[in-house]
Amino acid sequence: MKISCVKAELLAGINIALRAVPSKTTLPILESFLIVADEIITITTNDKDMGIETAVSGNIMEQGKIAVDARVFSEIVRKLPDDEVVIESDSNQKIRITCEESVFNLNGKNPDEFPELPRTENEKKIIVSQFILRELIRQTIFSISQNDNNSMMRGELFEVEGNILKVVSLDSHRISIRKEELANSYDHIKVIVPGKTLNEISKIINGDKDSIVEIAFDKNFVKFNLEGTMVLSRLIEGEFFNVEQMISSDYETEVTINKNDFLNSIDRAFTLAKEGEKKPIILEITENRLALGISTSLGSMNADLPITKTGKDMVIGFNPKFFIDALRVIDNEEVNIYFVNSTAPCFIRDNEGRYVYIILPVNINR
Amino acid sequence: MKISCVKAELLAGINIALRAVPSKTTLPILESFLIVADEIITITTNDKDMGIETAVSGNIMEQGKIAVDARVFSEIVRKLPDDEVVIESDSNQKIRITCEESVFNLNGKNPDEFPELPRTENEKKIIVSQFILRELIRQTIFSISQNDNNSMMRGELFEVEGNILKVVSLDSHRISIRKEELANSYDHIKVIVPGKTLNEISKIINGDKDSIVEIAFDKNFVKFNLEGTMVLSRLIEGEFFNVEQMISSDYETEVTINKNDFLNSIDRAFTLAKEGEKKPIILEITENRLALGISTSLGSMNADLPITKTGKDMVIGFNPKFFIDALRVIDNEEVNIYFVNSTAPCFIRDNEGRYVYIILPVNINR
Repeated sequence: MKISCVKAELLAGINIALRAVPSKTTLPILESFLIVADEIITITTNDKDMGIETAVSGNIMEQGKIAVDARVFSEIVRKLPDDEVVIESDSNQKIRITCEESVFNLNGKNPDEFPELPRTENEKKIIVSQFILRELIRQTIFSISQNDNNSMMRGELFEVEGNILKVVSLDSHRISIRKEELANSYDHIKVIVPGKTLNEISKIINGDKDSIVEIAFDKNFVKFNLEGTMVLSRLIEGEFFNVEQMISSDYETEVTINKNDFLNSIDRAFTLAKEGEKKPIILEITENRLALGISTSLGSMNADLPITKTGKDMVIGFNPKFFIDALRVIDNEEVNIYFVNSTAPCFIRDNEGRYVYIILPVNINR
Repeated sequence: MKISCVKAELLAGINIALRAVPSKTTLPILESFLIVADEIITITTNDKDMGIETAVSGNIMEQGKIAVDARVFSEIVRKLPDDEVVIESDSNQKIRITCEESVFNLNGKNPDEFPELPRTENEKKIIVSQFILRELIRQTIFSISQNDNNSMMRGELFEVEGNILKVVSLDSHRISIRKEELANSYDHIKVIVPGKTLNEISKIINGDKDSIVEIAFDKNFVKFNLEGTMVLSRLIEGEFFNVEQMISSDYETEVTINKNDFLNSIDRAFTLAKEGEKKPIILEITENRLALGISTSLGSMNADLPITKTGKDMVIGFNPKFFIDALRVIDNEEVNIYFVNSTAPCFIRDNEGRYVYIILPVNINR
């Protein structure tokens, strides 16, 4: 194989491909980039849960393929001058990298040992803008469970019904639901995508409103097709929790509050929350006022915020972090919060049905 | 005590004072800010090796003093709105912090338990610009030893002779010497300042050419007086190494090379250096060319750079990191390197005598 690429183009491809290089693996070949020069130049990585294949523009002087340690190769390319890089490999898997006056010689690895990315079958495809996909992930990913025994809590539901894409994540204390209208209607799709994949995808996509992603689902895999890059991920097996039955439309109290003022006050209260102590923030809702307070071994904090309220007065306690997480991703200036009683979940939701955040209260024994 | 300050001013003082709050201590009161409202408002911190007293502008409604947990207080102030902050304490050391609609109540600590900063005596003072002080530290601090048994290697020599300030640091493989002309002449001063103090000072000073630092030395302490802030540090005891006797003016080979090209090439070679393997970079100096090469278990790298050479040809090996560290802090476009033989230290030095970097070679057994 012999190819040449501009350093910046090569590095851009490397930075994408690195996201599927496993940090620990029992299969050392997975710590490699598979570089293939066929009709185009591609870099492939594969951590068994997720695979990436990304194109790098450049000239192919001699077709071929080679595997090379991903971290060493990345580090070398990162340090090269901003100029043309020539990469050659021979039949003994010796690699030579030349850029200006610098020449590197590395031992490559057998490219045939690199496990091929799985092929998908009978895919159902949807199209969504990169901007929307990134927003959907950002506005739900915080409530997946990092290390729950239930693997479904480590992923997010992606469900398509007609022209509506619904994304749901939950842990044992809260649920995040985001719905978005798509430009077209599709057949029904219901899968669970690993949180890790979604985190990596949201770093790879550029987030432009004008750029699109084609998402292709089959029984076991999801494939994100971006311009020049394909990310393939295993799906999480199982029937996702029926969250619709957890959402009640009944409520006793509705509060409208300035989002930033509320978020900042809870964030201030959170400075007194100590790991392990798990003291709740207590909301006292009366006519036109929300009194917010926390009391921990470090001290106490109180604030009083103006609200618009309909319904009953209410005293209810929450883990401040859950409110902070949800309020941080809401872009509206004001939020509506719905309370049933002091032991039932509260709902933060907009009038358009684009988001619902459900948070379980803490028993405050008053 | 009752004072009020603008949040931004208070936070600026906090960020300076935090630099002398110990991360671990057997004396819990040292984890506090001592806030004193006397003629002015000051925040004092003290980690026993270093102390800081910094002024905060604000209004004093009631004189007094209080100690408060530095990390909790910092975190609270950081999260407050950009507005006036009122801080009150009573005789029971209860603290109330009020800013807009937020009220915090904290338990303070007895301010009389906070150990006073030591007083200095018979100080010798010098004046230097903040810019020069920061440069002197930046250009020498990398070669102090982090955890050498010899405490002198964890500090830097500050020596004043006439109008010359000389700063020296060394570990067992290299020496850094920086000299700077001062505006005035002074009596002889020769002390060892801890590296930790110098690291903190270089983060506190603004680095302006027009701002000055008064540095006051006594037998056991050094005091850096900046506008509104005083940093006091214990000195390291002992007679510093006589580095002058290690500097030879004899050499067999003199090389002049473009600094950035040389630095970048060594930095590229360094990507193949593995922790523990300690493979040297080998320099082969011939007429007009410097060939640079490294060979490790990861692979090999070679580069060929143009030089101006006088004297003998030379083959010599070095730890690449030591060259990288020194070349990174040199601002000149070209550097002069002087070699005696392949087992003697080499010298990187300028013609004006402002810097000398001495690096021991590695035995390459050729």
